[in-house]
Amino acid sequence: MTRLISDISMSLDGFVAGPNPSLEQPLGAGGERLHEWVFRLRSFREPHGLPGGETGPDDDVVAESWRATGAVVMGRRMFSGGEGPWEGDPNADGWWGDDPPFRVPVFVLTHHARETVQKQGGTSFAFVTDGIEAALEQARAAAADKDVYVGGGASVIQQYLNAGLVDELQVHVVPVLLGGGVRLFDGLDEPVEVEATRVICSPTVTHLRLAIRAPR
Amino acid sequence: MTRLISDISMSLDGFVAGPNPSLEQPLGAGGERLHEWVFRLRSFREPHGLPGGETGPDDDVVAESWRATGAVVMGRRMFSGGEGPWEGDPNADGWWGDDPPFRVPVFVLTHHARETVQKQGGTSFAFVTDGIEAALEQARAAAADKDVYVGGGASVIQQYLNAGLVDELQVHVVPVLLGGGVRLFDGLDEPVEVEATRVICSPTVTHLRLAIRAPR
Repeated sequence: MTRLISDISMSLDGFVAGPNPSLEQPLGAGGERLHEWVFRLRSFREPHGLPGGETGPDDDVVAESWRATGAVVMGRRMFSGGEGPWEGDPNADGWWGDDPPFRVPVFVLTHHARETVQKQGGTSFAFVTDGIEAALEQARAAAADKDVYVGGGASVIQQYLNAGLVDELQVHVVPVLLGGGVRLFDGLDEPVEVEATRVICSPTVTHLRLAIRAPR
Repeated sequence: MTRLISDISMSLDGFVAGPNPSLEQPLGAGGERLHEWVFRLRSFREPHGLPGGETGPDDDVVAESWRATGAVVMGRRMFSGGEGPWEGDPNADGWWGDDPPFRVPVFVLTHHARETVQKQGGTSFAFVTDGIEAALEQARAAAADKDVYVGGGASVIQQYLNAGLVDELQVHVVPVLLGGGVRLFDGLDEPVEVEATRVICSPTVTHLRLAIRAPR
């Protein structure tokens, strides 16, 4: 059974993006600091066409996620940073160029219909306008026996959590304080009961794998 | 040189107490879940006069903190849960009975003057009415060559962080979501720059030792 996994990096004070996101700083002020841990890893660099990179426990966690991923769901903001009709979006082709790292079908939640874009390396971007459940259904079909990953942003993850559709949350806690921005755990209709099933840590990042349980 | 260490348990969504604290639930709804990890440890049970308890990495972290502590600073709320004049506080003797676990001098921040209370086992409670710097000065003198610990609540820790007086923050991140309550990292005048110098983790709790750095 294909599971829905949410996977995101979060600061110790709970933010997944800093304040004032822009095209120049899509993750807001300081937000890129949440991802420095991953940029240096072989499992990040290889699908981005970069040589070398560190191996070790952090790399194993990321490599494992890539291997398990059969399809990705993301919000429009995560795709392009924009909003509104695509003709007015200066980043309408997304952040990743001709050979995006996903190498699986990606489903982008948007209010603005658009033809599917086929990229190199197995990545496609389909644009889903009829809501999170429709996007998940399409992603499940595309993922076959692998997992569906929701990468963000926070509001998309919150929508899936509120709908009770998330099986597992993987949170990479980075020991920095952003002091403001977008919180991962805001906007939940009711508290979500989680159980840590695996925790791997270093001074750089703590990877928490959390199974979603029924409320206690 | 005596250092000022802040030491507190926090939920994954950033809360150090749940909503609606009361005399019956001093840590608010669900707040006691932040401390379940410590209750089962030998290093917690022994100073509370309880037999047995688990040993291992979590226990080592707590035992190390007890050993390093020469004095404690805490807020009035953490001491008794009350506020206002002591005559009207039904818990004016504090939570810990005749033989509190601290076994060092404790300095309680309050607006209401009161004589020092001497307890068994080396614990005393002095009541400091002239602010956080005065309390720290007295605690430093009492701690000799050991550290001063600030146990909480959040607002006291925030006051010390804002005053630039904290050397190290030890945060025990517990993988539960409280969904509301008192946040550790609210109320900071500006973002605090931290560097993780040690991280120890299990599915139950992640212990982050964070050195406070100058803003970057």
